[in-house]
Amino acid sequence: MTKAKKILIITGDAGESFEILYASHRLREAGYLPVIAAPSIKRMNLVMHDFEPGWDTYVERQGYFLESDISFDDIKVGDYEAVLIPGGRAPEYLRNDSRVIKVVKDFSDANKYLFAICHGVQILVTAGLVNKKKIACYEHVKFEVESCGGRYITPDEAIKDGKIVTGKTWQSHPEFYKIVFSCLEQGN
Amino acid sequence: MTKAKKILIITGDAGESFEILYASHRLREAGYLPVIAAPSIKRMNLVMHDFEPGWDTYVERQGYFLESDISFDDIKVGDYEAVLIPGGRAPEYLRNDSRVIKVVKDFSDANKYLFAICHGVQILVTAGLVNKKKIACYEHVKFEVESCGGRYITPDEAIKDGKIVTGKTWQSHPEFYKIVFSCLEQGN
Amino acid sequence: MTKAKKILIITGDAGESFEILYASHRLREAGYLPVIAAPSIKRMNLVMHDFEPGWDTYVERQGYFLESDISFDDIKVGDYEAVLIPGGRAPEYLRNDSRVIKVVKDFSDANKYLFAICHGVQILVTAGLVNKKKIACYEHVKFEVESCGGRYITPDEAIKDGKIVTGKTWQSHPEFYKIVFSCLEQGN
Amino acid sequence: MTKAKKILIITGDAGESFEILYASHRLREAGYLPVIAAPSIKRMNLVMHDFEPGWDTYVERQGYFLESDISFDDIKVGDYEAVLIPGGRAPEYLRNDSRVIKVVKDFSDANKYLFAICHGVQILVTAGLVNKKKIACYEHVKFEVESCGGRYITPDEAIKDGKIVTGKTWQSHPEFYKIVFSCLEQGN
Amino acid sequence: MTKAKKILIITGDAGESFEILYASHRLREAGYLPVIAAPSIKRMNLVMHDFEPGWDTYVERQGYFLESDISFDDIKVGDYEAVLIPGGRAPEYLRNDSRVIKVVKDFSDANKYLFAICHGVQILVTAGLVNKKKIACYEHVKFEVESCGGRYITPDEAIKDGKIVTGKTWQSHPEFYKIVFSCLEQGN
Amino acid sequence: MTKAKKILIITGDAGESFEILYASHRLREAGYLPVIAAPSIKRMNLVMHDFEPGWDTYVERQGYFLESDISFDDIKVGDYEAVLIPGGRAPEYLRNDSRVIKVVKDFSDANKYLFAICHGVQILVTAGLVNKKKIACYEHVKFEVESCGGRYITPDEAIKDGKIVTGKTWQSHPEFYKIVFSCLEQGN
Repeated sequence: MTKAKKILIITGDAGESFEILYASHRLREAGYLPVIAAPSIKRMNLVMHDFEPGWDTYVERQGYFLESDISFDDIKVGDYEAVLIPGGRAPEYLRNDSRVIKVVKDFSDANKYLFAICHGVQILVTAGLVNKKKIACYEHVKFEVESCGGRYITPDEAIKDGKIVTGKTWQSHPEFYKIVFSCLEQGN
Repeated sequence: MTKAKKILIITGDAGESFEILYASHRLREAGYLPVIAAPSIKRMNLVMHDFEPGWDTYVERQGYFLESDISFDDIKVGDYEAVLIPGGRAPEYLRNDSRVIKVVKDFSDANKYLFAICHGVQILVTAGLVNKKKIACYEHVKFEVESCGGRYITPDEAIKDGKIVTGKTWQSHPEFYKIVFSCLEQGN
Repeated sequence: MTKAKKILIITGDAGESFEILYASHRLREAGYLPVIAAPSIKRMNLVMHDFEPGWDTYVERQGYFLESDISFDDIKVGDYEAVLIPGGRAPEYLRNDSRVIKVVKDFSDANKYLFAICHGVQILVTAGLVNKKKIACYEHVKFEVESCGGRYITPDEAIKDGKIVTGKTWQSHPEFYKIVFSCLEQGN
Repeated sequence: MTKAKKILIITGDAGESFEILYASHRLREAGYLPVIAAPSIKRMNLVMHDFEPGWDTYVERQGYFLESDISFDDIKVGDYEAVLIPGGRAPEYLRNDSRVIKVVKDFSDANKYLFAICHGVQILVTAGLVNKKKIACYEHVKFEVESCGGRYITPDEAIKDGKIVTGKTWQSHPEFYKIVFSCLEQGN
Repeated sequence: MTKAKKILIITGDAGESFEILYASHRLREAGYLPVIAAPSIKRMNLVMHDFEPGWDTYVERQGYFLESDISFDDIKVGDYEAVLIPGGRAPEYLRNDSRVIKVVKDFSDANKYLFAICHGVQILVTAGLVNKKKIACYEHVKFEVESCGGRYITPDEAIKDGKIVTGKTWQSHPEFYKIVFSCLEQGN
Repeated sequence: MTKAKKILIITGDAGESFEILYASHRLREAGYLPVIAAPSIKRMNLVMHDFEPGWDTYVERQGYFLESDISFDDIKVGDYEAVLIPGGRAPEYLRNDSRVIKVVKDFSDANKYLFAICHGVQILVTAGLVNKKKIACYEHVKFEVESCGGRYITPDEAIKDGKIVTGKTWQSHPEFYKIVFSCLEQGN
């Protein structure tokens, strides 16, 4: 029996719970082993980003809980096929964590796939990876993408540019994962 | 271009939000068109079933919101490849809705696939479809399955018996959907 | 001074807080000593089942907290006049606890009164005690009662059949406790 | 068939939900008809006063909901055997409602029973009825009682002084209602 | 460099979070050192008192959290220029704490300023300091003020009478702090 | 009597409630008239950003509610002395509103003061105003400031650079408002 290929998921407290659970379950269904890395091994306080009548932006509420598998300190890039970065409010502070930025750059340098959805794209921006790239992301992240040289794409729900695959929001799961698995099946 | 095949999803207020969103996104990714039926067309008040330290059972909290697409009154069984019944607290009261029971029986009579996960299995039980069948479901639904002649299966996360595919909980998504898509790809 | 007669209350996390508090206070007022048994001695996380506009079923929210008095391990049936089983979401999982089922059967074998309200009836169903009995219970528990041979009674709020007294919901407190105290006053 | 005797309950938004529901159900069980009066006929936003580890006072959370039956404008004192005033945060503002104060004084002038529990005693204080009376009430209402001439009683859970019956908190239900029904059964 | 003059703030669990934070930040801006005293040194569970459509009184929700600096046991009146008492639900129980009442009386005896806002005025009432004084406070505290000889002032948002400065609610911050700083700048 | 000078406050749903209320009350105390502009005149759904043990970033909860005074459509820059931009999650989406960006640039072009705190700085970044400026802001906004040419300042709580005054978080209120009022008192 072949051992499952590993995909690294980078998130933490305030990560978007549906995006993280979806990634984890969807990868397992396809035979991959998702490994969730966070600032430490912990029961992460995830959030739910949803919409309510009367609000001019999304709302944030308590989400599902999940345990992280490893700490950022224990990531070995060589062990993974690719990295996947979900959204929520976590990428806002994770982009200040030098371990995260180094890991993401290492994936890029190793010519491995980088998948990011919604606010997860903020990590790619801070790692300096969106310059001249076509990028789909949450509309409120558009400014950050463009100010760092990226090309914000709309109305596509998800897009691939080189080894970077990005999706707008969790409503883009269908299109995003179609591309993700098309990439993974071709191998690196 | 071929029109997408339709899959009926039966739920309502108090349906489990992750199970419903997962079904909807996963089916779309695979090229199917999910149609969510509820007692009426409405913004459904979905719930989150999760676990917290210190509790002897799961907790229920406010979940994601979702609009239903059609009312139970407007279901035409012939339009669908299969029916999928998510869990949460919705099946408890939906099993008292004669429209739901009739629809589910009609899918069975038409020899179409019936997929149910977690508490969703309660609908199959009430429709009289679990007798002598191997059934995976939430452990707290085991009594109802067995008292109506079903055979509660464990530790499998999901199982197929004839045209009925059942899964334990949302943690069984990977195994459950592997079987679901294996069924759908063979056609009816 | 005569020692107060004891009534056993069976519940746990997710028990309905108003039903449990009402039982406890009402029994004390009448001079009985209620003893609350749960899976362990703990501060129980009780819930509130109530109704809100826009919902097709009841809502569940955080309820009052209460300490249990004893663990299921420490129940001596001979110490009690009767057992009372409140509802909420607790009976769903308590019916899987063999200690609970044994205790309830022992009360029945000892020809003592069994009182159950709302979802509390699920315990009687699993203990095999509703066959051929007239039973009042929450309407969403009707299927379970009938599939195990019970006769679901409506529109009565509460009913006595032999040594079993059942009530529909916490809105049936007045009728339910009238019967409960009429039974207790006659003695066993 | 004799028509049920009526008991007036005075409360409103922020009334304590367990105290109000308990009064309503307990009175019905005893054959009385409780009539809930509030500033208007409405779905009252009741609260839950409970205790949590780490707090130096009680906590307030969302309680059960209840409809009031009549507005304070429509109270006819002659229709009622007695008035019962539950606690919560409602009495704090209801004591500023001149309709409430007049009604309560009228009950006193008519030599009818006045029952009050927990913060409900604040209404009696403002109506000028506690002077020289023995009063049980929530410990944080003690100052108001004493500054208006009342005699704060402890550790009794409930006490009767003339036509006034008062109880400490909802934990005093057993003792409080024993006295309430002893009074009601003697008639006025 | 001159050491900042100290102002004592008296509060605790259920204190109104905006009033406490405002006092703390506003005093610091003006060069004073606020010292928050509570029943013990702890992370206080503060509340938010706000208004919602459909409610006949204010609502209480979870507020901001704050650490207290010292316990009531460690207050040395001589160290402070003045005392400031915010509102919320904390004053209701703090008025039963003899340490609080003694401290407040000592400030009065030392002819130092006493500032109180909203329900904070309840402490002044219990300390016997409002007799014959003009007092602004939350309208639901009016009865307590008047029953202890105070003169409830309206519609002024804040008022000074001798060494006592009081404000109606947190909406009175502008007028209240104008007077507070006018007092502090004149010195004692 | 001189008419109060006006200060424009730019915020909306998900604005940080303490920062907005503090600005409004503090400006009024100093004799200014704050005017709150939002996408429309509405009861804004404000949030609370606070800290909880066990979280690697701040938490977001329901905050105080506030009505906005005017819509962004009705801002006349000439009417105001200065603009103040509070934080929270509102600036993330407001920076995509071209009306907001134009207004902020107009204030700059008119050589008027721009005050921003916490995430409010995101608006200045998008308006292109932080280039070569010393900026204090929430640490998670640092990347955006620097990627657009600003100089992130720490550990100062607040800083003035030309006509731009910025503060780190609501914990910086004392230092921030000292500078704000020092600017306003000098006039433009």
